[in-house]
Amino acid sequence: MEDNKNIDLIIKKLNIKSNELYFSDFKLNDLANKYGTPLYIVDEELIREKCRLFKKAIKDSLKNNGNILYASKALSAKFIYEIIKDEDLGIDVVSTGEIWTAKFSNFDMSNAFFHSNNKTDFDIQFAINNKIGYFVVDSEEELFLIDKFAKEKNIKQNIFIRITPGIDPHTYEKVATGKVDSKFGFSIETGLAEDIIKKALELKNINLIGFHCHVGSQVFDTQVFFDTIDVMVKFIKFIFEKYHFLVAGLNMGGGFAVRYVKSDKQINIYENVFKICEYIKKKFNENSLEMPQIYFEPGRSIVADSSITIYTVGSVKKIPNYKNYISVDGGMGDNIRYALYGAKYTYLPISNVLDEFDETYDIVGRFCESGDELQRNVKLPSNIKRGDRIACLTTGAYQYSMASNYNRVGKPMMIMISNGKIREVIKRETLDDIIRLDV
Amino acid sequence: MEDNKNIDLIIKKLNIKSNELYFSDFKLNDLANKYGTPLYIVDEELIREKCRLFKKAIKDSLKNNGNILYASKALSAKFIYEIIKDEDLGIDVVSTGEIWTAKFSNFDMSNAFFHSNNKTDFDIQFAINNKIGYFVVDSEEELFLIDKFAKEKNIKQNIFIRITPGIDPHTYEKVATGKVDSKFGFSIETGLAEDIIKKALELKNINLIGFHCHVGSQVFDTQVFFDTIDVMVKFIKFIFEKYHFLVAGLNMGGGFAVRYVKSDKQINIYENVFKICEYIKKKFNENSLEMPQIYFEPGRSIVADSSITIYTVGSVKKIPNYKNYISVDGGMGDNIRYALYGAKYTYLPISNVLDEFDETYDIVGRFCESGDELQRNVKLPSNIKRGDRIACLTTGAYQYSMASNYNRVGKPMMIMISNGKIREVIKRETLDDIIRLDV
Repeated sequence: MEDNKNIDLIIKKLNIKSNELYFSDFKLNDLANKYGTPLYIVDEELIREKCRLFKKAIKDSLKNNGNILYASKALSAKFIYEIIKDEDLGIDVVSTGEIWTAKFSNFDMSNAFFHSNNKTDFDIQFAINNKIGYFVVDSEEELFLIDKFAKEKNIKQNIFIRITPGIDPHTYEKVATGKVDSKFGFSIETGLAEDIIKKALELKNINLIGFHCHVGSQVFDTQVFFDTIDVMVKFIKFIFEKYHFLVAGLNMGGGFAVRYVKSDKQINIYENVFKICEYIKKKFNENSLEMPQIYFEPGRSIVADSSITIYTVGSVKKIPNYKNYISVDGGMGDNIRYALYGAKYTYLPISNVLDEFDETYDIVGRFCESGDELQRNVKLPSNIKRGDRIACLTTGAYQYSMASNYNRVGKPMMIMISNGKIREVIKRETLDDIIRLDV
Repeated sequence: MEDNKNIDLIIKKLNIKSNELYFSDFKLNDLANKYGTPLYIVDEELIREKCRLFKKAIKDSLKNNGNILYASKALSAKFIYEIIKDEDLGIDVVSTGEIWTAKFSNFDMSNAFFHSNNKTDFDIQFAINNKIGYFVVDSEEELFLIDKFAKEKNIKQNIFIRITPGIDPHTYEKVATGKVDSKFGFSIETGLAEDIIKKALELKNINLIGFHCHVGSQVFDTQVFFDTIDVMVKFIKFIFEKYHFLVAGLNMGGGFAVRYVKSDKQINIYENVFKICEYIKKKFNENSLEMPQIYFEPGRSIVADSSITIYTVGSVKKIPNYKNYISVDGGMGDNIRYALYGAKYTYLPISNVLDEFDETYDIVGRFCESGDELQRNVKLPSNIKRGDRIACLTTGAYQYSMASNYNRVGKPMMIMISNGKIREVIKRETLDDIIRLDV
């Protein structure tokens, strides 16, 4: 493998041969020629590796008390549930659409946690009819409706209650969910958490298993998890002493950060998860509380860095004394994260990779608005031209799942590299797909 | 009609009877019960009224020299092109998907302008094969490819060139497109505009008709248009004197603002468009230039305030000393404009409309992230509860067109009120639609 000080190969299995970028032994330019662009490319082995890393960390610390649930909102599709099932992980789902997709993959729904701050009557009945393992209850209205529909089915429905521990993860505001002031969950500080637990314990068709908490996304710092554990264990002890209810499950949510650019910290998932598990054990032990089943819900950290996206350059506009623009054939329709959060990504050319990155560009999309930007101030070779391809790294999470048909542009296809072969896992939307709902 | 100082009925044909909200004689609660929510409701007559208003304004000023093109990226669907065709307007399209949809409505493509800062080879050939009226050329690469593909077809392709006049419209940065530093067009100031015109005039299969300019969206102030006209007419004169090329067409783009909330200025479209047309005439006259055909491209201002969206409340969370949240059954999946731009909207209950709006809420969506907000600090009655419906006004533009399947939630349906009847114009996405592309 050649290297160059400019090249940020932050994704495993990316490498350079004869000045061309390869992903798991496939020359990216060949894949782009064969399948067209924009093209999402995911590597199966990288996803499986991550699943196993999470599982090993909890197993090494918690033995049989640890469970990993894949948070499928990061990327929900038939193929991913098949991998997750095969790796023997559970899932977290947030809609009937995700439940339907998981069922389509023959996923065992007893291993699924159903989230959402607003489950409709249809959602609740649909989940019960499909024998969902656990509801993560997020509102009082939901609690009583689960009880009602469970009663109609003559079952006792397992639930967790979503607690907001009042921790500020100091990440993007838009993905910070654990603060008191959040649309999610019930805060401890205000007494709302205690109140809903009391109600849940009194309902005949509700089986309260434990609590769920989630502090936010892209959390780099384990201290945030430690702080959350402190709050949660204290609360668990309080509830135990006051109501003689001891949690059988504690779901810590997800939020493990992913490295998008070289300046992001290196993350050792195994070490972080192991440390958090050890801290949980220590805290339960210190408080003489029996260890419950512990759950984690990684989504982004399982799929994000298994994937890249390839675009084709359509125009290069150099505006003297102002700025240079590269327009590609995708944009906010297939990756809205820059427009929405200013999210950073690493971009690389896929040919002539070792040329000097001697020019600065704003990479913009093909969608008809100025906000359709993919990244500002990206260093790339000065000779980039129409027809060249560039890769955006770390695109497995919240890209396809947030894709739209803005400008009536079809969503890109996704291919997966599996055991040295290419498999189409999500079809490209066609022009006829675009008009199929028009009456 | 009853009224209340709290009620901002900023959409025509919205009215209150017996404490219930009606739209064009339909009780909104009845429509929500029959069709489900989220539900987009559009009124055909309001769209037609706007089309006629624009046409009358240009006709009264410019006689037969004025043309209105509907900018279909605001809302592209079969039914809308049928209305536009019937009202005898042209269209502006930005993708093969929009061209395909227009063709599906038997729209005459000779009346279509094809925009986009990045047209692929496929896009260009597709547009030529479908006999597109005009390309609005946005890059040098595109110009030469149009010439090449037109040559293969043995035609002379009509084009406009997109010029960036260097005007800052002082609106949201994300929708400001007329500045020198823009991904769109060729700036006058840097000489890039003159350069591309020179090249276009030399190409054998290109027929340069004129120039296009567009300064941005949600422009309330006609002065911005006047400033743009000053710059453009000066440039047109310069090009005429230097190259003996006199434009046969000047496309002023769109950008006419829409009133979303009561504090937005009242906009008199007829008066604004008429004034702008008069100013154009005056400037061409002052410079002894023959008047070209003038084009305007309103999108938002034609469809936005023809529509509302109905949501059902799923939970009301009151966090003492912090905040109150209303969660609805839609959100950033069907209206991403608050998350993306902080765009303001008017929200109203659709029943008990005359109750006092005595509580303040953040209205949030059902999507699984904290950024999924629809509007902060909305005054609504304190007794709102699960099952109640609320309406979001002015949702005809950039709502459905930007909708995603985030969380695998299907896009809402759209119904249209036409001559006292309801017609389904866009079908609701089903669970099977959601998985149809999964392999």
